Amino acid sequence: MLKKRDSYVVAVVGATGAVGEEMVSILQERRFPVKELRLFASERSEGKRMEFKGDLITVRTLTEDVFRGIDIALFSAGAERSRHFAPIAAKEGCVVIDNSSAWRMDPEVPLVIPEVNPQDLTWHKGIIANPNCSTIQMVVVLKPIHDAVRVKRVVVTTFQSVSGTGKKAMEELLNQTTALLNFKEIECKVYPYQIAFNVLPHIDSFMDGGYTKEELKMVNETKKILGDDTIRVTATTVRVPVFRGHSESVNVETEKKLTVDEVKDLLQAFPGIVVQDDPENNLYPLPIEAAGRDEVFVGRIREDDTVECGLNLWIVSDNLRKGAALNAVQIAEKLIEMA
Amino acid sequence: MLKKRDSYVVAVVGATGAVGEEMVSILQERRFPVKELRLFASERSEGKRMEFKGDLITVRTLTEDVFRGIDIALFSAGAERSRHFAPIAAKEGCVVIDNSSAWRMDPEVPLVIPEVNPQDLTWHKGIIANPNCSTIQMVVVLKPIHDAVRVKRVVVTTFQSVSGTGKKAMEELLNQTTALLNFKEIECKVYPYQIAFNVLPHIDSFMDGGYTKEELKMVNETKKILGDDTIRVTATTVRVPVFRGHSESVNVETEKKLTVDEVKDLLQAFPGIVVQDDPENNLYPLPIEAAGRDEVFVGRIREDDTVECGLNLWIVSDNLRKGAALNAVQIAEKLIEMA
Repeated sequence: MLKKRDSYVVAVVGATGAVGEEMVSILQERRFPVKELRLFASERSEGKRMEFKGDLITVRTLTEDVFRGIDIALFSAGAERSRHFAPIAAKEGCVVIDNSSAWRMDPEVPLVIPEVNPQDLTWHKGIIANPNCSTIQMVVVLKPIHDAVRVKRVVVTTFQSVSGTGKKAMEELLNQTTALLNFKEIECKVYPYQIAFNVLPHIDSFMDGGYTKEELKMVNETKKILGDDTIRVTATTVRVPVFRGHSESVNVETEKKLTVDEVKDLLQAFPGIVVQDDPENNLYPLPIEAAGRDEVFVGRIREDDTVECGLNLWIVSDNLRKGAALNAVQIAEKLIEMA
Repeated sequence: MLKKRDSYVVAVVGATGAVGEEMVSILQERRFPVKELRLFASERSEGKRMEFKGDLITVRTLTEDVFRGIDIALFSAGAERSRHFAPIAAKEGCVVIDNSSAWRMDPEVPLVIPEVNPQDLTWHKGIIANPNCSTIQMVVVLKPIHDAVRVKRVVVTTFQSVSGTGKKAMEELLNQTTALLNFKEIECKVYPYQIAFNVLPHIDSFMDGGYTKEELKMVNETKKILGDDTIRVTATTVRVPVFRGHSESVNVETEKKLTVDEVKDLLQAFPGIVVQDDPENNLYPLPIEAAGRDEVFVGRIREDDTVECGLNLWIVSDNLRKGAALNAVQIAEKLIEMA
């Protein structure tokens, strides 16, 4: 458990990745009480320097012996590294907030969105999991609706940006687009097919039943975060040629009816949600507008009369911020508040 | 009614648009029995020449007196022009196949996909409506499922390419992408916001209840084509930075259960559908692959166990071909077959 202090020794593991970089800048932006920041990555980033509060911090290679003296470690270095290094860090007394999928469904590990289930932070054993990006933005919006009228079923289709895959995917979209505009051959290294001017109904690997891991994450993580196994979720996750910001078309069936105005009131009152819903003035959430912002944006709120109590929503958020780095830092802030 | 002849005088109205051009090339490709092809467009295209079977045909300005002697007129010149000119053409004895939204919901006008409801061609009164692009590809797939196990409810989210808006929208995506890659200001003329590297949850105008016209088209046209008012459809339609080919994430609830293999068999046996569904080999439909093709491609077929009898499907087709020009020409072919 984290002890109350004025400031903390914080580590970012996977500091040079798309999410890691965002973690460093969010720690700075939010004036997180950092006594010392230590940055780790794989060997090929050794010696790289990153700016934090005017200082240049040298990135070091992640090894088993680096965790002594670290209070909080924000991990975003992939599931395999998390599985190996997070228990080692926890054993050294470090609280690990892990952005990978490694620990999310472990019953011993809380899966937390601070606005939704802060109470789950009380029972952590050194590792806390940060939910999947596409899950976070949806569950933030489902939470106040679920509390008011119980969510029975969710049908979600995602429009996920390439930054969710990482920096190399962002380069691939840029390189392919440039190549196509210059009538040159494109290269596909990160994705199995061209992503520029295309959409790919394939995120993460395929599992039983034809669903992808990403789709099953949305199903399983939603239940765990909301603490309700009866919520039925079915998902189709799709990669789109957008650099940053995930969008989601979410159809929700609830137990009791809500009018559009009631939904707006509920959402507006919830921390971290911005309602952008004024069709007459072409106001609705857009990924290019959400990029770089902290909030979850909701619009296109419509009653769906094909079921007794139905809603359609359009939910957009910055996948690197609320979908990853920001939520991790907010977990750390909540831990300090609760310490 | 069309009379049986060896060949016909055919007109394309709106010949210089994205769909009109496709109509001309599809008439040629399919060796449609054209005795003479007449091309019409608005005044600003007057004198433009288009190739057909090796001849250059001069585009003439559409006026009220051009329809005499024309057997079949394929209209793709917008709803306003259709409302004005289609009845004039029909009065001259011409069969109008109209690609606009003008006549689709008129109870006196059949709305036809030839593989789905050819029987509705028997009662036309000179005007036949071509359904909306996003509706056609979905209904082609729903039809064999509906016949087998009755479709109760559909939740659809679309990923629609810019060619659905027309040539200027294709130029806008190209120009914006080029501008952004060169760090220049972008211009938004066709869409209210940047479409390059973005997605817009807004197609056609907003109506009551917050739904767009495009979304309501999918709801209403589906019922009319399938001849079943009890099918409940709710839609969210989204523009994506893809040039050609619409994609759809479709959740279907049926009265009786179908396994994935049964769905595949039903779809494979239906004309015009190609099942592309082999996740292990990364086989699923993609808009860049469907572009220029005639078929409707279906993949990512999954049972959805959040309802008793549920399915998730991913449906892709070329919106200018099966979604517009090809379906119109197929209607004409079917009329000839039935003459």
